Amino acid sequence: MPDSARAFVPGHVTGFFSAHPDDDPTKAGSRGAGLVIGDGVTVELEPGGGVELNGETATIEAVNRVLEALRATAHVVVKTDLPLGAGFGVSGAAALGTALATNAVFGRELSENELVTIAHGAEVQAGTGLGDVVAQARGGVPIRLEPGAPAHGAMDGVPEHQSVEYRSFGELSTEEIITGDTDDLTAAGNRALSALVSEPTLETFMSSSRRFGREAGLLTPKVEEVVRDVSDAGGEASMAMLGETVFALDSGLSDAGYDAERCSVSLAGAHLL
Amino acid sequence: MPDSARAFVPGHVTGFFSAHPDDDPTKAGSRGAGLVIGDGVTVELEPGGGVELNGETATIEAVNRVLEALRATAHVVVKTDLPLGAGFGVSGAAALGTALATNAVFGRELSENELVTIAHGAEVQAGTGLGDVVAQARGGVPIRLEPGAPAHGAMDGVPEHQSVEYRSFGELSTEEIITGDTDDLTAAGNRALSALVSEPTLETFMSSSRRFGREAGLLTPKVEEVVRDVSDAGGEASMAMLGETVFALDSGLSDAGYDAERCSVSLAGAHLL
Repeated sequence: MPDSARAFVPGHVTGFFSAHPDDDPTKAGSRGAGLVIGDGVTVELEPGGGVELNGETATIEAVNRVLEALRATAHVVVKTDLPLGAGFGVSGAAALGTALATNAVFGRELSENELVTIAHGAEVQAGTGLGDVVAQARGGVPIRLEPGAPAHGAMDGVPEHQSVEYRSFGELSTEEIITGDTDDLTAAGNRALSALVSEPTLETFMSSSRRFGREAGLLTPKVEEVVRDVSDAGGEASMAMLGETVFALDSGLSDAGYDAERCSVSLAGAHLL
Repeated sequence: MPDSARAFVPGHVTGFFSAHPDDDPTKAGSRGAGLVIGDGVTVELEPGGGVELNGETATIEAVNRVLEALRATAHVVVKTDLPLGAGFGVSGAAALGTALATNAVFGRELSENELVTIAHGAEVQAGTGLGDVVAQARGGVPIRLEPGAPAHGAMDGVPEHQSVEYRSFGELSTEEIITGDTDDLTAAGNRALSALVSEPTLETFMSSSRRFGREAGLLTPKVEEVVRDVSDAGGEASMAMLGETVFALDSGLSDAGYDAERCSVSLAGAHLL
């Protein structure tokens, strides 16, 4: 067994979703769709104690829950250039990276599905996400057909990919929204999913995501303005669920005059480095 | 819709398998495990007619069946540096690449699972493979827990990857073996799968694959000799199912004095270029 291990987990931008709570965290989750992106999170792990996030001591509940589930006492160093709390699935990525690296360093001999299940359950119990982990494990443009960890969930994918731009204007609390009244959101999410399943293209993903944001009442005034600007410039943009973040296909944001980060869709899912 | 499209499909080296025939080609398939590798197949496709393989007119039955299923008349150009008929899943890759590229060029608006299902069914009906397509669609080190296309099959993965070497010494007919008496082979494949599921590591994958080759009586004298040479040099090698091909982790073959191709595990599955 190695003394330490590093894992990379891509970011995940959710375009639309519906929430599906369950007492069993491996059955709880979300339906929906998103883009797995090349900008992501690295997790470096060795025996020891304490969690660092971008150089500062931090508490990431989902990471602690993964370590507990794997009965490991570890020093975990999480690094990312992605904005935090802004809809990129950083907490899910940290949890999944911790699961992969712990498995390697502590010789737990678990499979990918088992590690994804542990990270998904930890993220659900922490209340910080419902569908990022299973998407980040897969890569590409995942469609989450059924909620939950691999044994319960079901996924498909949009067989296209393009480069992506994103720009974050602030944080939103995932926990506040997914633990509140989610009936309208879930109805809007189910409609968006039906549309994408009947026409699984990037274009339909973007238009369904925009409609979902409006119907679920999640767009902030700033996001609404930026998405409109990108449309006016001939591009395709929508809001990252859940953050005050706009993502666009290709050069949609910069064409509309915004400074934006650019990356590719990550065809690879989470993996050890 | 674009006038033409290109897809890349990684090669897949099966370490062990069990055959599971079924009248429904989407339920037929194999259990087993293998390595998805960075050396693969590109498929370029446009409206027209005829199939080319490495610059020569060719008939690839699985490709023709995919075109039929998608009601497309296309000129298909398949290119690969992988050895043919030697256990790298080239026919499955050509079928899957054809499905992805046809979907793009002819605007069929199908999902990844639907395209994989069509390519898997085509490959099964052509008799040229049972599990390559679903593995090539996924990437990594897939464990095929249940046979069949996405709606019926189930997959997991070994959460490790390393570079791979391979050397081919000749062809073997997949069709001859998978349409013959497969009882011993299936029993050996099931034992190998149990071992890998209880300890999903690359080391167990390699040792289970070697045991499978012996128990199923598939090793040719040449393969047996080369695998022994790699072991004697301290490496891990096994036979690619089904070809007279040896694959090894890291520099196993070159350490034993063989000229070998080297590539990485492909973490990404099949995709449009």
